[in-house]
Amino acid sequence: MDEFLIKFSGKKSKYKELQEHIKHLIISGALPHHYKLPSIRKLANKLDVNPVTIVNCYKSLEREGYVYTISGGGTYVIADNNLTNLNEDFIDQSSTHNIKYDLASSSPSPLFFPVKTFKNLLNEVLERDGGFAFNYQESEGYLPLRQSLQSLLTEYKIKVSHHYIHVITGGQQGLDVIAKTLLQEGDYVFTEEPCYPGAIATFSSRGAKVIGIPIREKGIDLVILEKELKKYNPKFIYVMPDFQSPTGYLYDLTHRKKLLELANKYSFTIVEDDHFADLNYSQTKLPPLKALDINDNVIYIKSFSKVFMPGLRLALLVAPPLFNEPLQEAKQFSDISTSGFLQRTFDLYLRKGLWNEHVNKVKLIYQRRCQSMLSALERHFPSCVKFSKPQGGLSIWVQLPEILKAKELQKVALKKGISITIGDDFFIQRKENFFRLSFTNLSEKEIEKPIKELASIIKGML
Amino acid sequence: MDEFLIKFSGKKSKYKELQEHIKHLIISGALPHHYKLPSIRKLANKLDVNPVTIVNCYKSLEREGYVYTISGGGTYVIADNNLTNLNEDFIDQSSTHNIKYDLASSSPSPLFFPVKTFKNLLNEVLERDGGFAFNYQESEGYLPLRQSLQSLLTEYKIKVSHHYIHVITGGQQGLDVIAKTLLQEGDYVFTEEPCYPGAIATFSSRGAKVIGIPIREKGIDLVILEKELKKYNPKFIYVMPDFQSPTGYLYDLTHRKKLLELANKYSFTIVEDDHFADLNYSQTKLPPLKALDINDNVIYIKSFSKVFMPGLRLALLVAPPLFNEPLQEAKQFSDISTSGFLQRTFDLYLRKGLWNEHVNKVKLIYQRRCQSMLSALERHFPSCVKFSKPQGGLSIWVQLPEILKAKELQKVALKKGISITIGDDFFIQRKENFFRLSFTNLSEKEIEKPIKELASIIKGML
Repeated sequence: MDEFLIKFSGKKSKYKELQEHIKHLIISGALPHHYKLPSIRKLANKLDVNPVTIVNCYKSLEREGYVYTISGGGTYVIADNNLTNLNEDFIDQSSTHNIKYDLASSSPSPLFFPVKTFKNLLNEVLERDGGFAFNYQESEGYLPLRQSLQSLLTEYKIKVSHHYIHVITGGQQGLDVIAKTLLQEGDYVFTEEPCYPGAIATFSSRGAKVIGIPIREKGIDLVILEKELKKYNPKFIYVMPDFQSPTGYLYDLTHRKKLLELANKYSFTIVEDDHFADLNYSQTKLPPLKALDINDNVIYIKSFSKVFMPGLRLALLVAPPLFNEPLQEAKQFSDISTSGFLQRTFDLYLRKGLWNEHVNKVKLIYQRRCQSMLSALERHFPSCVKFSKPQGGLSIWVQLPEILKAKELQKVALKKGISITIGDDFFIQRKENFFRLSFTNLSEKEIEKPIKELASIIKGML
Repeated sequence: MDEFLIKFSGKKSKYKELQEHIKHLIISGALPHHYKLPSIRKLANKLDVNPVTIVNCYKSLEREGYVYTISGGGTYVIADNNLTNLNEDFIDQSSTHNIKYDLASSSPSPLFFPVKTFKNLLNEVLERDGGFAFNYQESEGYLPLRQSLQSLLTEYKIKVSHHYIHVITGGQQGLDVIAKTLLQEGDYVFTEEPCYPGAIATFSSRGAKVIGIPIREKGIDLVILEKELKKYNPKFIYVMPDFQSPTGYLYDLTHRKKLLELANKYSFTIVEDDHFADLNYSQTKLPPLKALDINDNVIYIKSFSKVFMPGLRLALLVAPPLFNEPLQEAKQFSDISTSGFLQRTFDLYLRKGLWNEHVNKVKLIYQRRCQSMLSALERHFPSCVKFSKPQGGLSIWVQLPEILKAKELQKVALKKGISITIGDDFFIQRKENFFRLSFTNLSEKEIEKPIKELASIIKGML
């Protein structure tokens, strides 16, 4: 922590001088995002000042939006322009650094990542494999991991040989290799509407025409879907049957089966994106489409970003035999292979049976946060504002009266230190009165306050 | 190592029974590729047998191609079908498991990866950043790493702000995002010929037409290039000025400057792929095109796979201002972001000033292996066989007389446990009498034998 050493000039108060110094370290990038600042006691000792000086300095940095604190967990450098959220949701919130209540990011909370366990496994892999852990890996994935994944998938009733299981560098890469394999200029693709904007962008960038089919509480609108199927001949339809992003809706069994029937009748492929199936807070678990897919019409992607850790960039893809080789080739030409080192470590994690334990732990946490947010919404939001009541996932989808724009709400909320994700980009036919609230990054107790604040802003807009 | 425990039935000799058991563990995938088997002493103790039993068992497994030994370094499970090579060079060598002399793979040798150092840094990052190390990262890359890379690039005379430096998931992803950004169906792309097949495949898969311009010892053929430029209007030309893959040729300063002039005159972009500039065994260091690029015509990719460790999947891309945002967007839609955990660790590696030390170490090793292979080629190969005399990189490019096919040589060599990479796929206008010999995976002493063997096969074919 030598970078914190300064010679006080005595021209300003010590806490001010130290604050300027740390600000400079942050702006210059010398302290990375989310860097944990030294504890108050340690830094006070190091600089030989009263701990109160450090307390004042850190508080002041926090007020100015350079750092954030985790109660009992220390002080951290904030991400520049809150970029972590930007990346994920493509929403510009750069107008402020000073977000106290992050309801925008649906990234899982880093506080619940199994860091210690994973660290031990990283070391175990390096002890075992040495340099080979850092060599090229097969582009379809590290064989033992594919076998572990085969066994994991049986828990979701998906029975498939590891020959059809591909390790990919995150769910987004799955969409990319599928687009590369199946799409050519002018092809049609159907998606749910609203839909994850990263998917729409990926399909469009291959020159495909994307048609949105409305999603309802129990699944995609099958009547409209069949009507559109009579007009167009889509290469595939992209769906998230479990806690769809952004709505949080869950397909019932009827919608699942009917969608598979339609795929057979109209000969299209279904791309099933499973980010959230593990975060199911209800008692009923429905089989993924892939588990019901007797005709090999489903390409299945399971991401480990939302339930586990996004920084690993790990997901799996299950290919129908017909597309198995082309998808592998597309993956190979995308990035050769996914990091073998991270694959080996994740393999060990699965083999040691740690997966379910982790899932159960985070499920409980997020379930409580979800309930806490839902009840705050019930209490504070005016009745003209509708919101989903998801039984899984990491966020709630909110619909304002049509006369209101979510963007306006976002602007005012940001000034009060609250970030939300507006819905505009999730629509192909743009709608401006929707927004998404995520409950991943606030504790149960913290959730009430920003919801109350949002409610009061909305009431003021009405 | 409980998986090695067996109850001997007594029906066969103990070493045979153990061998069957381990074979089963390997085939079933219970032992991953490159898994280090227990030491002879340890396993003998564990199973309460004579060490000779283990020695015989391991030797027999090696003869059958299930394991390989590193002299003084233990016994390892072989990669299934030698897939590591397949991924990289797309050559099917699955006809044998029993490769004693790997001259095909130009992957760097895992024996020289700085595993211990890197392990310490991985732990340091996790101590410092905790769960945040595993969160989403900005899609352009972890800011402190981009700043470290900015400083690293000045050593190559490339002066560019970190705003134009993107962290990407390996060099291949660089080609992919460039293709996504610049190419549409029917566009023309020029490459050197012969050329890395992964590049040709990536450009073709966007519907581009790839035209090969011959590469000579001092760089791309400028006369033919200009002739073709008058006929076509390529979106970009893809080149490797430093130790081109597969030829190992090095552009001289004239060729570098002239290429930049042509780019200006005919308005095309240059994609400069730097895999090998660090592995320069000569005394002269030429500036990369990007360092001479006053007109912002060059997109520069620097891979850390060949010189450092491929399993990290890390490379950097320098974008001209015009393409800065579109390239970042294409990266984002490819895999959101490169693993933040690995980025943070590599950043620490650079900040601790370990890069040059590593480069100097491996450079010396590979330089000696290069010399050793060149002198073996001089001694043994008939004079009708031509080969490059590279002053850098990891392999030598060999030209057989036109009546001979490299594929035939490959077949016979494989039977003798020698793998080579044939040149066919490196050509757009297919030629069949070229092959590539890599010297990464054999020690100086080991190189003579397989070269002598290859020479004798070639002489037999003449």
